[in-house]
Amino acid sequence: MISHLLSVDSLTRDHVDHLMRVAARMEPIAQRRQVTRVLEGAVLGNLFFEASTRTRVSFNAAFCRLGGSVCDTTGFTFSSMAKGESLYDTSRVMSGYCDAIVMRHPELGSVAEFAAATNVPVINGGDGPGEHPSQALLDFYTIDKEFTRLGKKLAGAHVLMTGDLKFGRTVHSLIKLLSLYAPLRITLVAPPGLEMPSHLVDLVTSRGHRVEQRDSLAQDYADVDVVYTTRIQKERFTAEMSEGFSLSRDFTVDRAFLDRRCGRDTLVMHPLPRDSRPDANDLDVDLNGDPRLAIFRQTDNGIPVRMAIFATLLEVDELIEQDLRPVRWFVPARVGVDDREL
Amino acid sequence: MISHLLSVDSLTRDHVDHLMRVAARMEPIAQRRQVTRVLEGAVLGNLFFEASTRTRVSFNAAFCRLGGSVCDTTGFTFSSMAKGESLYDTSRVMSGYCDAIVMRHPELGSVAEFAAATNVPVINGGDGPGEHPSQALLDFYTIDKEFTRLGKKLAGAHVLMTGDLKFGRTVHSLIKLLSLYAPLRITLVAPPGLEMPSHLVDLVTSRGHRVEQRDSLAQDYADVDVVYTTRIQKERFTAEMSEGFSLSRDFTVDRAFLDRRCGRDTLVMHPLPRDSRPDANDLDVDLNGDPRLAIFRQTDNGIPVRMAIFATLLEVDELIEQDLRPVRWFVPARVGVDDREL
Amino acid sequence: MISHLLSVDSLTRDHVDHLMRVAARMEPIAQRRQVTRVLEGAVLGNLFFEASTRTRVSFNAAFCRLGGSVCDTTGFTFSSMAKGESLYDTSRVMSGYCDAIVMRHPELGSVAEFAAATNVPVINGGDGPGEHPSQALLDFYTIDKEFTRLGKKLAGAHVLMTGDLKFGRTVHSLIKLLSLYAPLRITLVAPPGLEMPSHLVDLVTSRGHRVEQRDSLAQDYADVDVVYTTRIQKERFTAEMSEGFSLSRDFTVDRAFLDRRCGRDTLVMHPLPRDSRPDANDLDVDLNGDPRLAIFRQTDNGIPVRMAIFATLLEVDELIEQDLRPVRWFVPARVGVDDREL
Repeated sequence: MISHLLSVDSLTRDHVDHLMRVAARMEPIAQRRQVTRVLEGAVLGNLFFEASTRTRVSFNAAFCRLGGSVCDTTGFTFSSMAKGESLYDTSRVMSGYCDAIVMRHPELGSVAEFAAATNVPVINGGDGPGEHPSQALLDFYTIDKEFTRLGKKLAGAHVLMTGDLKFGRTVHSLIKLLSLYAPLRITLVAPPGLEMPSHLVDLVTSRGHRVEQRDSLAQDYADVDVVYTTRIQKERFTAEMSEGFSLSRDFTVDRAFLDRRCGRDTLVMHPLPRDSRPDANDLDVDLNGDPRLAIFRQTDNGIPVRMAIFATLLEVDELIEQDLRPVRWFVPARVGVDDREL
Repeated sequence: MISHLLSVDSLTRDHVDHLMRVAARMEPIAQRRQVTRVLEGAVLGNLFFEASTRTRVSFNAAFCRLGGSVCDTTGFTFSSMAKGESLYDTSRVMSGYCDAIVMRHPELGSVAEFAAATNVPVINGGDGPGEHPSQALLDFYTIDKEFTRLGKKLAGAHVLMTGDLKFGRTVHSLIKLLSLYAPLRITLVAPPGLEMPSHLVDLVTSRGHRVEQRDSLAQDYADVDVVYTTRIQKERFTAEMSEGFSLSRDFTVDRAFLDRRCGRDTLVMHPLPRDSRPDANDLDVDLNGDPRLAIFRQTDNGIPVRMAIFATLLEVDELIEQDLRPVRWFVPARVGVDDREL
Repeated sequence: MISHLLSVDSLTRDHVDHLMRVAARMEPIAQRRQVTRVLEGAVLGNLFFEASTRTRVSFNAAFCRLGGSVCDTTGFTFSSMAKGESLYDTSRVMSGYCDAIVMRHPELGSVAEFAAATNVPVINGGDGPGEHPSQALLDFYTIDKEFTRLGKKLAGAHVLMTGDLKFGRTVHSLIKLLSLYAPLRITLVAPPGLEMPSHLVDLVTSRGHRVEQRDSLAQDYADVDVVYTTRIQKERFTAEMSEGFSLSRDFTVDRAFLDRRCGRDTLVMHPLPRDSRPDANDLDVDLNGDPRLAIFRQTDNGIPVRMAIFATLLEVDELIEQDLRPVRWFVPARVGVDDREL
């Protein structure tokens, strides 16, 4: 298998299939019906040099659910890097302390540079405009699981991606993952200046998928199976760019769009966080409670998928089934199942 | 039992009695004579969106002592809320990762809003000027335990509350808890403008307690059983208010006040932190080492009380006794017992 | 044994010998061939009131590898100290929550003040210009282990210390530890104004060691066994001092210096972090990958040494051997052994 998880580019279809199978085996633990202690004694270095609650806690909880311990580091100013330490030194030092490392860093390529200096598994938790492969894997796992629930097949499915397709690293990673599978129909809808980079369009097309690009949501998408929407990545813009671009109300996915333009079981996905401020024109809150809104099923799926990543990199994926015990504490009836949306 | 712990308002006397009984059963663990692993595999989300060392570490340690793992989040700027995420979204996401959530947030009502969006137990660790119910419970537990030690009874006891009674949320919560029990005599001493809100005085009076309000400590309180003092809550004031109010030296509880005005076994309590800067006129440090000073017994009691809250919400309060082992490491002779004050 | 670890001054040669023996017994765990759960149920308070990734994670990981849980606190602004709480109060409160406390604080003497108020073991993780005893112990352990590997003896060894010898607390602590052992030859090389304080030179001389002081590296050191180099401690300087001092290129230890001036198996050590910015003139990166560079073996050794400190203070050093199990997860072939430098 793989030794680090730095980019979806290094994943073959076999890798993805394996991770999906292991993630499915993690469900009883993620849904808190069972516990395992297979990583007892192992230490994760969870190094976040950029703000993140969601992703950091998700990796942390996933490692804990395998029985391991976590050392968290948040924020650049608390880092010895502020004293001029190189990524090489930080990496060598941390790999003497930890058995696996998750790293988020604002600079493109920084996580790969970090991984090159260590011999423990490194997972890219986001390197600025670069990659965020665990997000793409949980998105893919969600599509797969939802399709199974709905009796649909991935082959021939129609996926619509909309919003900021230029700077949204999650759509870049997801489209690459999807392109490994049976021919799909992919529609890309972005305002001028925020289109999907052409090299990605070319890649997906060259792999036999049918790609269509549009600049408006104002038409019918009745046969779309998945609407994947992203917010404007303002933190990736330079100052001038920030002036130039914004998502107009026309790009907002809301209940009216879904009811009027899409099918009855079209799924709505989003990498989160969703900007709920009125002028953000991000995914509308009027879909909260609607079973088509799969965004919290996505984050729920982050736990089994990240457990699968750790279990695979640390080679305990085959051991877990020998180390399962029932949960002893109270678990709400529908934890691990979305009781609001299903 | 209860499903969240958001406010003392939702607690009946039966709830409080139950939590006190469970807390007493936790003492061998809190005093490190025994260990339990009953929450092995469970994850606590410890979300502090406002500065706190004491309370955060207390919840964290209590969950660890039950065998669980903790994901900490401190400070607003490291949160995805800074990107416009709503409390609803944060709540739904976190409840997919964690089995229980403690939340402190500067805005009144925010924790209840958060709890409404989740199906895992949520504990209010303080919502600005609102509630801090675990503090009231540990204060009540301390009074109960100290009275037992001193051979006193709660019925007919005389409790004096002084300092900032207007903005001090801990005295608001404590007075409500106390009012559930046998008739008490409660004396409230505050400078003009910082008096206990009248709706709370009315509530306590309507439950049959005898309440007296004064504006000076300069008289005899020989029959007072407990002096509960609070500092000025400057962080809750607006800019102009901060000018207007301060606690003068007359409101300082110190050794001279206790020796001259109070009885030989009057207890002194304080929610901490205590402001030790000279101009703060907070509880005086000249009482350090005096057995009447119960403030560190209060914080020590935070561990069994918070363990009782977790054990009750997660329904393992009956299981713990089947899962106890002796501690193997060195424990100083008087850990868990206050060797300076008793 | 000792009850706190505040300063190397309180360590006798017997103490050091004991800690070195226990650290050696921790190697199978630090190298992830075995796990122990001997501290199951114990809680460490890891209180860092000053920036540090490396040291904080090292203590955290060491405690986890013994089976304990860790509560981290980073940064002064998140502390209740910002509300005027005294070190005495913080200490009394924390010792009710935790079984051991590591503390780093910018003020000299603060950790000792903290320790005086508690009855649980306290470890000084650095108190400003004061002490950092665990660093000195891991440095000493590294010298001892490397000398064994090279077939050398400590008696009669020649140690060169260079860089900022005035403000570098690690060289102060290390020279005191070394001085407990068989007579050494110690050469101190610093620019004018940054010399080793004379009371330390006097102490070491009075214990029978041969000390020589120089102001330049530009001569032969063929018989030097260890070159211990430190960076300028700019954060300890006042504003004017910062102008006055800097390490010129002449004080940089690099491959050319080692090849031309030193012996074939001279070890290069550094307390890290190493400032890799070009104008820092810190230890040169051109030695990366050179087996003489022992800096990452130093940090690797931080784990067994800090485990030994915890195990000794908590009196489980004799119990661990009865509580060892094999590691179940994948461990890279050379984790715990430096595959780049050996």
